[in-house]
Amino acid sequence: MDKEAANHKINAVVLLSGGLDSATALAWAVREKGWQCTTLAFDYGQRHRIEIEASAVIAGFYGIKDHRVIAVDLPVIGGSALTSNMDVPKDGADKSDIPVTYVPARNLVFLSLAAGLAETVQAEKIVIGANVVDYSGYPDCRAEFLNAFAKTALLGTKSGVEGSGLEVVAPLITLDKSEIIAMGLKLGVDYSLTRSCYDPDDQGMPCEHCDSCRFRQDGFAALGKKDPLLP
Amino acid sequence: MDKEAANHKINAVVLLSGGLDSATALAWAVREKGWQCTTLAFDYGQRHRIEIEASAVIAGFYGIKDHRVIAVDLPVIGGSALTSNMDVPKDGADKSDIPVTYVPARNLVFLSLAAGLAETVQAEKIVIGANVVDYSGYPDCRAEFLNAFAKTALLGTKSGVEGSGLEVVAPLITLDKSEIIAMGLKLGVDYSLTRSCYDPDDQGMPCEHCDSCRFRQDGFAALGKKDPLLP
Repeated sequence: MDKEAANHKINAVVLLSGGLDSATALAWAVREKGWQCTTLAFDYGQRHRIEIEASAVIAGFYGIKDHRVIAVDLPVIGGSALTSNMDVPKDGADKSDIPVTYVPARNLVFLSLAAGLAETVQAEKIVIGANVVDYSGYPDCRAEFLNAFAKTALLGTKSGVEGSGLEVVAPLITLDKSEIIAMGLKLGVDYSLTRSCYDPDDQGMPCEHCDSCRFRQDGFAALGKKDPLLP
Repeated sequence: MDKEAANHKINAVVLLSGGLDSATALAWAVREKGWQCTTLAFDYGQRHRIEIEASAVIAGFYGIKDHRVIAVDLPVIGGSALTSNMDVPKDGADKSDIPVTYVPARNLVFLSLAAGLAETVQAEKIVIGANVVDYSGYPDCRAEFLNAFAKTALLGTKSGVEGSGLEVVAPLITLDKSEIIAMGLKLGVDYSLTRSCYDPDDQGMPCEHCDSCRFRQDGFAALGKKDPLLP
């Protein structure tokens, strides 16, 4: 546990999607930083709903006492393959700068809800698993955006007016997938509990062909490790 | 219609709660500015659910073709009299700087969802009825916050990356309640369609004692007008 946390208890809200990145970010917040964490998952009409259950299981694995799921009806907004009937591109078929799996303003919405929760649980940190791989295609994973968000949230919340701080912490922001997995393995993350696939089958097993599956496979392969989710 | 709108079609997303302020802001956007409006209401577990139906009726009154309602489960966050079992203060009983009817990060969440919708309907404006009365108690109604939000949203959305603009417009921001009503009456707003009360009875009629009812009554009284909602 680091010195800051040893001196006074630090509360954090951790965005926990149930995927590989957010599980690693949670492990870092709990084991490396010693923060008291409230985990937050979203039921946003995603086709990979299995991640919602995965997030609860991962929260349990880390002894989190306060895990919440907020339903937010993003399909009303549309515009994404993850929340509509559009096909999820396979085997790298999507060559656009911003992939069709981008969900309009998703992290903005998720961070806003996290900022509201941070206020009620008196957390001064919001932890998000955004990283360099996502960053390359999703505008809402850029450090620049995350910093601007924290400032805006302070202006728009009671905590900000009353002088408490709010920091958006992205411990994985500069790491690629294999570096994230290496960090997680050191911290004892059980990756068999995590779900990454955008388009799982009825049993929740990964398609192995969407971008999210491919980045995950490449990450484990680069370390010469086997993904515990795969047969 | 102003010149800007006459030269090219301007799309706007208008936050339409069903209350007096947002109905006036919509009238301004449609009749004064000539913007093509998509209206957006939220089903956020508010006890004054009647406003959700009111917003659809008001949208219909203005001939809006695209009215949407996004469900977002704010009671999971808690911390407000509007989304929990806490009592709504009556007759000015709440003397705190930030009233207990403040919902943590509500406008941050609503504006974030509006920014996502703005992206899919290609709107360059978000219109919000925030004003000086709300401003006095709710941090997320301050101009400072609204401007910071627009900048953050641009950093976190595809539209921003691709160079389109996004402006948060608050046409009522400097007006008090009677000035808002005067403006709305000029624009032909039918205030009998609007609902303001935080704690309506089973028939949806106003309690006449919560802050929202009191500000509304005072606004009409200052103009020597009768609120068409009242018997």
